[in-house]
Amino acid sequence: MEENLAIVALVGDKMRDHVGVSGQMFAALGENGVNIKAIAQGSSERNITVVIEERHLRKSLNVLHESFFLSEKKRINLFLVGIGNVGGTLIQQIAKQKEYLRENEHVDLRIVGLANSKKMYFDEEGIDLAKWKDLLMGSDLTMENTAFIKSIEEMNLRNSVFVDNTASADIAALYNGVLRKNISVVTPNKIACASSYDNYQELKNTAREYKSKFLYETNVGAGLPVITTLNDLIKSGDKVKKIEAVLSGSLNFIFNNFKSGVKFVDIVKQAGEQGYTEPDPKIDLSGVDVMRKILILIRECGVEAELSDIKSESFIPEDCMNTKNNEAFYAKLEEHEAHFQALVKKAEDKGARLKVVATYDNGQASVGLKEITKEHPLYILEGSDNIVLFNTNRYDDQPLVIKGAGAGAAVTAMGIFADIMRIANS
Amino acid sequence: MEENLAIVALVGDKMRDHVGVSGQMFAALGENGVNIKAIAQGSSERNITVVIEERHLRKSLNVLHESFFLSEKKRINLFLVGIGNVGGTLIQQIAKQKEYLRENEHVDLRIVGLANSKKMYFDEEGIDLAKWKDLLMGSDLTMENTAFIKSIEEMNLRNSVFVDNTASADIAALYNGVLRKNISVVTPNKIACASSYDNYQELKNTAREYKSKFLYETNVGAGLPVITTLNDLIKSGDKVKKIEAVLSGSLNFIFNNFKSGVKFVDIVKQAGEQGYTEPDPKIDLSGVDVMRKILILIRECGVEAELSDIKSESFIPEDCMNTKNNEAFYAKLEEHEAHFQALVKKAEDKGARLKVVATYDNGQASVGLKEITKEHPLYILEGSDNIVLFNTNRYDDQPLVIKGAGAGAAVTAMGIFADIMRIANS
Ligand SMILES: NC(=O)c1ccc[n+]([C@@H]2O[C@H](COP(=O)([O-])OP(=O)(O)OC[C@H]3O[C@@H](n4cnc5c(N)ncnc54)[C@H](OP(=O)(O)O)[C@@H]3O)[C@@H](O)[C@H]2O)c1
Ligand SMILES: NC(=O)c1ccc[n+]([C@@H]2O[C@H](COP(=O)([O-])OP(=O)(O)OC[C@H]3O[C@@H](n4cnc5c(N)ncnc54)[C@H](OP(=O)(O)O)[C@@H]3O)[C@@H](O)[C@H]2O)c1
Repeated sequence: MEENLAIVALVGDKMRDHVGVSGQMFAALGENGVNIKAIAQGSSERNITVVIEERHLRKSLNVLHESFFLSEKKRINLFLVGIGNVGGTLIQQIAKQKEYLRENEHVDLRIVGLANSKKMYFDEEGIDLAKWKDLLMGSDLTMENTAFIKSIEEMNLRNSVFVDNTASADIAALYNGVLRKNISVVTPNKIACASSYDNYQELKNTAREYKSKFLYETNVGAGLPVITTLNDLIKSGDKVKKIEAVLSGSLNFIFNNFKSGVKFVDIVKQAGEQGYTEPDPKIDLSGVDVMRKILILIRECGVEAELSDIKSESFIPEDCMNTKNNEAFYAKLEEHEAHFQALVKKAEDKGARLKVVATYDNGQASVGLKEITKEHPLYILEGSDNIVLFNTNRYDDQPLVIKGAGAGAAVTAMGIFADIMRIANS
Repeated sequence: MEENLAIVALVGDKMRDHVGVSGQMFAALGENGVNIKAIAQGSSERNITVVIEERHLRKSLNVLHESFFLSEKKRINLFLVGIGNVGGTLIQQIAKQKEYLRENEHVDLRIVGLANSKKMYFDEEGIDLAKWKDLLMGSDLTMENTAFIKSIEEMNLRNSVFVDNTASADIAALYNGVLRKNISVVTPNKIACASSYDNYQELKNTAREYKSKFLYETNVGAGLPVITTLNDLIKSGDKVKKIEAVLSGSLNFIFNNFKSGVKFVDIVKQAGEQGYTEPDPKIDLSGVDVMRKILILIRECGVEAELSDIKSESFIPEDCMNTKNNEAFYAKLEEHEAHFQALVKKAEDKGARLKVVATYDNGQASVGLKEITKEHPLYILEGSDNIVLFNTNRYDDQPLVIKGAGAGAAVTAMGIFADIMRIANS
């Protein structure tokens, strides 16, 4: 096979005198998939020459520059798909933290690709975050999944991360191919991890095999450190015996505001207006969202479960769920007002609050509406907070508890940001 | 300078066909400080020859083996100093998880060095964990800090991690030198992070510069994910406005069991017998341990504070603290029984519980005994649990809360284990 080669020579005394100059160099090139054909190094360690394929020339120069000069930053190239509530907030956070991270973490975060469902836009040098909206809207590239992936490949940038901020199954279907290109994936999108167990496992295996990362802390509890904590427990040999959790910010909001005399449908509408529910509130109220989250948690515990293994008792009458649009759904909820009033009355008579609780106990996961009395640790949950209690062999008398806002763009974007930084630091 | 060189050739079709065979190879060698002198690669990518210094030969062969054959595991070489409650439990956990980690994480954890205050023992192939006690006790090497470090250097193993499970300032003083050898440090020992701000900052800088890691999650809250969570918040641009925390398992145990009519000194003795306090209970009761912990938390928030900046009101009369041994301390506590009874009576009359609370608010950190009433989120804390509440710009209406066992060998060792795995995965 013919190939065009390029020669890179580095000479100078600014090179590091740490352990192995050439070692540093090869580490940096290797991590970025540059194939070195030949190398020669002066015994003084003040000059090095490498032969590489020409197509890797620019990438190599950048990588070498970064790894030889202490003042240089590690550049992380982000490809963002989905720039709604969460993606848009993530961009703001990155814009705000760029300088801090350069100074304090020696990391240079750049967004080099952006897409929503309509358009896509790229800039290898980093998209100007002061006007990303105009740049994207003015782009003449129509968003098309294969074209987006092709651009990532053609740009062939080091330390690339694919960030999926959509709820799309089509985008989730791209992860495996992306991971195989040594590109890491970060996402709040639950579709992949809550799909078939085989698919979930394959993504994990691919990431391990190709030394890319697949991180999805925000799939459960938004920015709360739920999945990383669980992973830490499991790796060190702890065993989760029981999980009790409130995992839906929107359902918690609804049941914290729903009281005798207040109409259930009004609270559901209010939750929608305040941005707590999905555009289609049935997705929250059906409990499917919570089922997915508890499924992901038990999979992280090593349980080979499918979504159909999660027991779920719906508190919404079936004919409400069979409606075609929000108007019809609200109308049906109103018809069943007596049902909801009965539920809340029964709880109130016991001094209890209603909460949709996900549990895992004795090997069985389930989701259902429960009457929670004052003594119970879930009782105190306010607003749209989430809470997770892990009872394990080590956290035995008292559970390990994590609690806090479990929805909202700012905390979700923060969790995505933390996953990106985990990749930057690795 | 004369140097002995060695040539390594790799030929075969078991090599990976992922991105850049040679890239993988250089990455692996470089990360481990091997200096490559020259390299030649066949265009088929089925054979590669490298020239290295002879002293790196064995390390290189191991590294290459690992990185070329998928079935091979990434070997992590651990040097453990301190094998008391925590260190001993960590060894048990590693022994138990070895196989699981090989299978599921492709990581091969080996303990290659061990020391307590008397003896040290090394085995480059990995110490047999079924009989580490006998091996250490039978060792003819007296523990000596410089000799221990010299052995680490001479063994010159890839992916080395120094784990300090002592409470010793002498061992903490070794970290900077260790980090400069590209060796990571993991520790539950608070001495370094609670020392002068300059020293704390220097360790962080050294780690960043030498691409080693310095991890100490277990300095606060044992295995609870407190420091990593805080780091995630800060990096993504959140700002901590307020911290409220109960950070001493022993003090919480004492004040959960101290009631009117019960003698304070008896509870303190009981806490000692059940292993909740340090051998010298004054270290817990003086509040210094809690002051160190809140100091570490605010430093992680970016505050350049010293221990002397933490306000502390002691609830222990001064003449108790001036005693020379535990007997004298207990006798003095007994003399002051009326003081303690008055404290608890006052709290009980308000329906409150006593807790030693660390707070950070309006830029000021402090530690003191507080009367906590029923409505307060700290009220429910049981046993020896710790709890931390972070109020931030993003976790604003409701704090981010982390709660659970904050002391004990199993959960502490687990936190250390998690830090080690963070290094293995990076
Ligand atoms: N919001 C929260 O509090 C929260 C919390 C935890 C997790 N999450 C998860 O975060 C993700 C994003 O939530 P969000 O609230 O930001 O949603 P959103 O505001 O509806 O934004 C979704 C974005 O994805 C884009 N998109 C949808 N399908 C696409 C496709 N096939 N190709 C390219 N782009 C596509 C949309 O583009 P258009 O604008 O062109 O339609 C939009 O930019 C979801 O998976 C959600 O479950 C959200
Ligand atoms: N126990 C907990 O619940 C907990 C929780 C969080 C953090 N921690 C921290 O974890 C660390 C260990 O606690 P621990 O309960 O395991 O203590 P420990 O049982 O007293 O064990 C201390 C170990 O350190 C060794 N050691 C002391 N000084 C040494 C020196 N200069 N050189 C070499 N070895 C030395 C001791 O050796 P000898 O046996 O020869 O004296 C012993 O093996 C402490 O920093 C503690 O604050 C503990």
